Amino acid sequence: MVDEVREPIVDVFDEREKLVVIAELPGVEEKDIHLDVKDDIINLYAEAKDRKYSKEVLLPSPVDANSMESSYKNGVLEIKLRKK
Amino acid sequence: MVDEVREPIVDVFDEREKLVVIAELPGVEEKDIHLDVKDDIINLYAEAKDRKYSKEVLLPSPVDANSMESSYKNGVLEIKLRKK
Repeated sequence: MVDEVREPIVDVFDEREKLVVIAELPGVEEKDIHLDVKDDIINLYAEAKDRKYSKEVLLPSPVDANSMESSYKNGVLEIKLRKK
Repeated sequence: MVDEVREPIVDVFDEREKLVVIAELPGVEEKDIHLDVKDDIINLYAEAKDRKYSKEVLLPSPVDANSMESSYKNGVLEIKLRKK
């Protein structure tokens, strides 16, 4: 699976004033994950030695990119964003 | 995805005297992973707060269960087994 770019499993949870995005990215390190947030889209990209993930995540509402907090543990990325 | 039992992505690599099994189990802890090896079958089960995985992995040859070494990092489990 070296050169294949995979679309990760992503869930988006609407929690009133914020959105929580859960993405499954097994096999990468936190430093390998790149997130670009604009309005209601997250462009997610991660590349490690033998795994590549890419996905454009459409959000149910626009968010403040500066509010982003993210954490990665056991192959799962959690992103929190405040709605605009 | 709380109650759903998912079949994880598993790859098996045949490396002459041993087999290497790579299983993607994002979102669990190493202590949540249970492995039962018998002849040429690995029964893999993992259960965490909000994720359950289960799979019967058929190996290309029988292995010595006592030789098993495993490690879990960033959501990926690697199992090494010596062939019988």
